[in-house]
Amino acid sequence: MPTMSICHAPVPGGPDALRFEQAERPRPAPHEVLIRIGAVGVNRLDAMQRAGHYPLPPGTNPVLGVECGGTVMEAGAEVDGIAPGTRVAALLPGGGYADYAVADHRHVVAVPADWDDVRAASVIETFCTAHETLFELSRLARGERVLIHAGGSAVGSTAVLMARAVGAEIVATVGREDKARRLREWGIPHVINYRSVDFADALREIHPDGIDVVEDFIGPAYLARHVSLLRWRGRLAFVGLLSSGACQLDVAAVLLKMLQLRGFTLRPHSAVEKAAVVERFRQRWLPELIGGRITPAIHAVLPFAQAAEAHRMLESADNFGKIVLRI
Amino acid sequence: MPTMSICHAPVPGGPDALRFEQAERPRPAPHEVLIRIGAVGVNRLDAMQRAGHYPLPPGTNPVLGVECGGTVMEAGAEVDGIAPGTRVAALLPGGGYADYAVADHRHVVAVPADWDDVRAASVIETFCTAHETLFELSRLARGERVLIHAGGSAVGSTAVLMARAVGAEIVATVGREDKARRLREWGIPHVINYRSVDFADALREIHPDGIDVVEDFIGPAYLARHVSLLRWRGRLAFVGLLSSGACQLDVAAVLLKMLQLRGFTLRPHSAVEKAAVVERFRQRWLPELIGGRITPAIHAVLPFAQAAEAHRMLESADNFGKIVLRI
Repeated sequence: MPTMSICHAPVPGGPDALRFEQAERPRPAPHEVLIRIGAVGVNRLDAMQRAGHYPLPPGTNPVLGVECGGTVMEAGAEVDGIAPGTRVAALLPGGGYADYAVADHRHVVAVPADWDDVRAASVIETFCTAHETLFELSRLARGERVLIHAGGSAVGSTAVLMARAVGAEIVATVGREDKARRLREWGIPHVINYRSVDFADALREIHPDGIDVVEDFIGPAYLARHVSLLRWRGRLAFVGLLSSGACQLDVAAVLLKMLQLRGFTLRPHSAVEKAAVVERFRQRWLPELIGGRITPAIHAVLPFAQAAEAHRMLESADNFGKIVLRI
Repeated sequence: MPTMSICHAPVPGGPDALRFEQAERPRPAPHEVLIRIGAVGVNRLDAMQRAGHYPLPPGTNPVLGVECGGTVMEAGAEVDGIAPGTRVAALLPGGGYADYAVADHRHVVAVPADWDDVRAASVIETFCTAHETLFELSRLARGERVLIHAGGSAVGSTAVLMARAVGAEIVATVGREDKARRLREWGIPHVINYRSVDFADALREIHPDGIDVVEDFIGPAYLARHVSLLRWRGRLAFVGLLSSGACQLDVAAVLLKMLQLRGFTLRPHSAVEKAAVVERFRQRWLPELIGGRITPAIHAVLPFAQAAEAHRMLESADNFGKIVLRI
């Protein structure tokens, strides 16, 4: 049996809990493709799973990594239109921190031959997440006001680029001045450093009559302020939970302003739902990426052996944009 | 100047705070029609406004009543297609507890000549509210499981009929056995009397793996149970707030189950938004009403002079279906 290197956390813990092992190379089911992975995106989900804070659904591959860039080596019998040799970006149910992975062929997008695997691995999870939350859930439209937290994170910075692309009025929050500078270089006029001011106070100075959409990576700690800031028909998407604990909801405000609060998490999507998500990415954003109209930030590319260092980098939130491991 | 009778609560209070007075008859603006009112629907909103619990937007007619049935007497210069003599149901910004009211012509629906005004006055607000929440917001689909509270109320019982019409699996709650019996006569198998059991416990026995949609007239007191009962991609619409006070939101559950929580209130809709609401009612439900495929319940028809009695009836929640005042 051919083998390969994998990386996982057999005993949950900090970044140094990650272990490299040899494992059997997977074989594609009839609806799957086998990908030789060249690069894997590092996501907060990976860090949560490593720390034991993300209970895996039964049957899920315990190897970390939910997106990759690479080359198709073999296609299952039912796969049509993705030949061996195709360069792809893929959403994975797990198993990306490895030399090889299998992916549902509907979760795979062919990328231009001149893209390297790092580029392919850096866009699919972030673009799918930001698109689904900003547009499919929150229906952000031209001219609307959107508050995007974690503006330096991979998903946050991608959401900023998408919102800019559709002509929304963006207010972003960051925790470091260098990130604020980067966003201003992208033409974002309103960037709030939440460490130096209360973001809600700062936002009220910019938009005294409120905002339309919140891209929320924070959750409980900010909920009351978000409900207060949103105006008539405002929408909020919970994309992440950087805070925890109990929080109160002002139901009367939700009703009287006709607010909409929605949760989003990509991983538990069914295979069919995920296929639809990938198709929307392929149709709406892949052309923008290929045409160079959107260029998301890549913060660092590290060798596979430095996976622990990549996790430390992510958890310190020093990054502006995506962190990628080259396999 | 021609005058007319109106009913309002110059000093907020209980049902006996209602006063009848003579006032000047309104004149239609160019985009309005003047309606000779034959009947007016009694809504919880009227009772809240009477009690001083509903701060009116500036410029709103302080006379109670947000829907009526009647006959068009005069049409403004810009009004096309609604001739004097037309029998109509109309959404009003206020002013329905009166002999005459003006309405934006886009908020008026022509009804068959053989409908009496009581019938016209009994459907428009309830059908608009139930349709917007169940379908425009919550996107209830055939085969999905919906929990409808206040199944004997005007909006609740209408929501039951609509959900039945699209083939949803309905669980309704009521507070009286005679209302439960009425709903069972409509073919609703699962009716929970929330006074005799905890509705959430009863619901879990019916659907151990959860529900898809909640039509929520209760708000804070039930929120935790609703968030717990909803399954993957579940939706909740806050349609009313029969409970009050603080409540906690389990944001993690909202995120991990991709729940959607939305508020709804018809009155603050802009004129254009309200026109779209009325148009959806006209297209989707008026034919069902005219064809006799849906017959909503009318609990009582009282003479105008008994407006206080109608309010008492509504606030005691003894009604099954709509309460209407004949003007």
